[in-house]
Amino acid sequence: MYSDSILAGRLADAAGNAIRPFYRSDFGHEAKGDMSPVTEADRAAEAAMRAILDAECPSDGILGEEFGVKPGTSGRTWVLDPIDGTVSFMAGRPIFGTLIALLQDGFPVLGVLDQCISGERWIGAVGEATTLNGKPMMTRRCRALADATLASSGPQYFDNHSAEHFMVLAAKTAHKRMVWGGDCYNYGLLAAGQIDLVVEAGLKAYDIAALIPIIEGAGGMVCDWQGEPLYFDGRDDKKLHNVIALGDAARLEDVVKLLICNH
Amino acid sequence: MYSDSILAGRLADAAGNAIRPFYRSDFGHEAKGDMSPVTEADRAAEAAMRAILDAECPSDGILGEEFGVKPGTSGRTWVLDPIDGTVSFMAGRPIFGTLIALLQDGFPVLGVLDQCISGERWIGAVGEATTLNGKPMMTRRCRALADATLASSGPQYFDNHSAEHFMVLAAKTAHKRMVWGGDCYNYGLLAAGQIDLVVEAGLKAYDIAALIPIIEGAGGMVCDWQGEPLYFDGRDDKKLHNVIALGDAARLEDVVKLLICNH
Repeated sequence: MYSDSILAGRLADAAGNAIRPFYRSDFGHEAKGDMSPVTEADRAAEAAMRAILDAECPSDGILGEEFGVKPGTSGRTWVLDPIDGTVSFMAGRPIFGTLIALLQDGFPVLGVLDQCISGERWIGAVGEATTLNGKPMMTRRCRALADATLASSGPQYFDNHSAEHFMVLAAKTAHKRMVWGGDCYNYGLLAAGQIDLVVEAGLKAYDIAALIPIIEGAGGMVCDWQGEPLYFDGRDDKKLHNVIALGDAARLEDVVKLLICNH
Repeated sequence: MYSDSILAGRLADAAGNAIRPFYRSDFGHEAKGDMSPVTEADRAAEAAMRAILDAECPSDGILGEEFGVKPGTSGRTWVLDPIDGTVSFMAGRPIFGTLIALLQDGFPVLGVLDQCISGERWIGAVGEATTLNGKPMMTRRCRALADATLASSGPQYFDNHSAEHFMVLAAKTAHKRMVWGGDCYNYGLLAAGQIDLVVEAGLKAYDIAALIPIIEGAGGMVCDWQGEPLYFDGRDDKKLHNVIALGDAARLEDVVKLLICNH
């Protein structure tokens, strides 16, 4: 696992080097269509990571946001999201990130969240303490849902059905402290004991897999809206996941009860 | 105006020095009640700025978020928000900011937006080009509302009435690129040509006054939801403002029409 962590760190370095030249490169220019700087940066970063994996781990599978699935034979799959938080990137906010996960037989055993602008890197691995820039991080306790700081990337990511359940939950948390936006950064802050709860709907494997070892290695938990563990088919880049991330697992029952209240 | 800019920069330095020790100082601790690190940081930063103004500009008024109104006799009022984006600060996000405005007879003639974690500082003054870390910045053109990237701090800041109008507008913008959260940072990004439109409700003078010279000096405009200029009574720290900030003033009519459609 140690050498996999080193490799994942090198992937993150390569992605960051590919991304940084495009960040805010269109300052002052008119908004463009599809082939925007974010698309160029996304592709360049994923290509850079794939080049390393193809050369050094040719039997591992790859599931990436930009270039899809490359089946492997080793039982291991690298799951890559070069830019998680593309709207943040496009808006010039420094809180987007690169996500790198290693799945072993469908379960994420290693995760990296890299913020290439702020220079923050979270690393999590099964059986090890999660670190932020090398320093161990822990989630915080949360004795009551009413004290919980909740984060979510935006109301537009819920469909009508999931939005309704989300709003029921949000009203029971410390909703004046609720933070919107943020994408992967929210999960890093949860692992660092800064917020208590992230609830999102419709995430793909590459949006969430890397964050599971990071949060679990910091003492928290990640599951679906029924409280069940997430499982990833390394060949399915389309499946959608509704996700709960909790700093304090003692609040799981409260959260699940509110999210499924009208089922 | 040049010497006022220098002074405002020194105020921002003092605020940043007061704030940084509290940022993420509660990593891993349980969420607390009212006298949180953000409150301590807010007060320390405003006190540091007031100490400089009291010593060097004793006849200027001060309107601050934390310590209220000090009337002046010079016709000039400094408007201070030590931490704009307190929920971001509390969540450990680096995108909160310090806002410093100078009002002359109710109109903001100088504004500073300082991000003390990322080290970004916007300065705007009437008749001068807005700068970000010394480099001139311009808003971008936006030829159609459907291409506009919209930002707003969070749905919870609207009442039911303003939320309804906001949603009508949001649906006509490039809503897939819409960014939530961000507070003052959104206005800085608009001045830098990275997003096109910020629409918010219920802002106080210290939330918005500093951002007006910054946006206007970058080629954009700031007004209320009727399209009228904002005016501040330097002795009123309670008045609420509904705000439109636009990178390209040519879109003003489209925006106002949608926001007032059902009046």
